[in-house]
Parts: sequence; C-alpha cells; structure tokens
Amino acid sequence: MPPRAPSDAIDLGPLGKRIGYRLRRAHMAVLDQGDEAFASLGLRTQQYGILLFLNHAPGHKQMEVGIALGIQRSNLVKMIDELEGLDLARRSEAPNDARAYILHLTRKGRTLLRRAKILDAELDRRFDRKLGRGGCKKLLELLTKLAALD
Amino acid sequence: MPPRAPSDAIDLGPLGKRIGYRLRRAHMAVLDQGDEAFASLGLRTQQYGILLFLNHAPGHKQMEVGIALGIQRSNLVKMIDELEGLDLARRSEAPNDARAYILHLTRKGRTLLRRAKILDAELDRRFDRKLGRGGCKKLLELLTKLAALD
Repeated sequence: MPPRAPSDAIDLGPLGKRIGYRLRRAHMAVLDQGDEAFASLGLRTQQYGILLFLNHAPGHKQMEVGIALGIQRSNLVKMIDELEGLDLARRSEAPNDARAYILHLTRKGRTLLRRAKILDAELDRRFDRKLGRGGCKKLLELLTKLAALD
Repeated sequence: MPPRAPSDAIDLGPLGKRIGYRLRRAHMAVLDQGDEAFASLGLRTQQYGILLFLNHAPGHKQMEVGIALGIQRSNLVKMIDELEGLDLARRSEAPNDARAYILHLTRKGRTLLRRAKILDAELDRRFDRKLGRGGCKKLLELLTKLAALD
C-alpha cells in the first residue's frame, strides 16, 4: 500500500492550520510508520490494533468491536475476513444468538501479537524522540480532551 | 450521516493508550462536530476543507488536490462530483493537458465558504474551551512534529 501521508509540496493556506486537517495528517503518518514497522510480520497498523483489542477483550460480538474501534461494519467485515484468512483471528457463533459472531484471536494470532508488541514499543520510542520529553503524554491528554463529548 | 466517533462503553485496554487510536478518535470527533456545525449550510466538514483549499489555491489539477489533501483518487472524484452537483465547485480542462481537470470554486461556492468560515471560527472557540489555554497551539505543534518525516 502506498504511503497515505499527503504531500507538503503544495501551500495549503488556512487549511494547513486547521486541527481536523492536522489530525488527519498525523494519523496518516502514524499509520504509514506502523505499516512500515509491522511489514516484517506481514501486518498492517490497523490489523495490529484489532489484534490488540481482541487479545484484551475476546468474545465480543463483531458489531461491538466495530463500535469500540469506530470501524464501519463493511470495513470491519473485510478486515476480519483478512485476519481469518491469515489464521490470526476467528469468528464463532455467539451463544444464544445464531445471527451474531463473536471474535477471538487464534493461537497464531497471539504469538504474532507478542512479536508485534515489541515492534510497537520501538515505534513508541520513535514518537517520543519526535515529540520530545513529555510530548506523547501531552498529546494523548489533548487528544482525549478533544474527543470527549461536550 | 451517523456520528463517526466510537463508543467509550467498552474497555479498550492497551489500544486506548495508543497514539494512532487516539488520533483516529479525535479526528472522528472533530469531523462529527464540524458536520454538526456546518449542517445549517448543507455542508460536511470534509467538503468545507476542500472549499477552503480551492479558494486559497484555485486552478490546481484534481490529482494535485488529492495529493495535497491526502484524499484517494476515487474518494476525491466522488467529493468533487458532489460539490459540482451543489454548484459549489467546478472542473475545467487543464490548459495544455486535455486529460486533466483543474478545480475552482464557483461564485456560489465562494459565498457559502464565507458563511462557513464564521461557523468554523465558532468551532475553533469550542476547541479552545475544550483544550484550555494554549491547548490548540500546543496540539497543532505536536501534530505537525508527529507528521514530519524523520
């Protein structure tokens, strides 16, 4: 997949100072850097996020996972299909609800996740270097405030 | 369009502390709040961003606009179709390149943008209140550092 981060070559004017645009660019850059970091495991950043969540909270229904992660149903279905194809996660019928699936990691998924976490820790150190002392903590704090309901 | 921001009802575990995930949630929240703010003009946040850019930098090729804004070609084509349908922007043939389009605002687009900027300024004040004194400036600074190439 080509890098998602947009180019700086064109003067953006007032758009470049908007928080929404800067959030988008920073998010794209983080996704790109994650994709690069996880490439040796054949994993993409967003797949890593799903594995991380399923490991922490197995047995949720697919719909609940979509809501928690803020991923639209159709996109999540595709992503879970991919993870199943790689034998990293699996769906099983929800108890008492044959129309719903619950999601789990496979043994292979748990093993891969352990290796991915090591790469993720390296990624965090890279962000720390970029943002300077206390920068990551401050950024997380501001992002959480921004996402909070009024 | 339903709000994009994911739910807080499910414990996210380590995913909730990751910068990429927090960027995504903050971005979704900002998109939602913009959609709400611009709804009275029949505009969405991302459309506002495109209008803002086209007003500042008219005459760029569609491809260049996509790169500058970090929007994939197929999505941008759809968005420009919509803006053309609303008579807010228009494509015209690029000089010396009949296969490419350049993009402009229409008169109606410029008028709507002026009204949208007033709503956007109110949105900025809302973000200021959320993030506290100096918070927006600090956030923009951290986001710009994070998106910078190593």
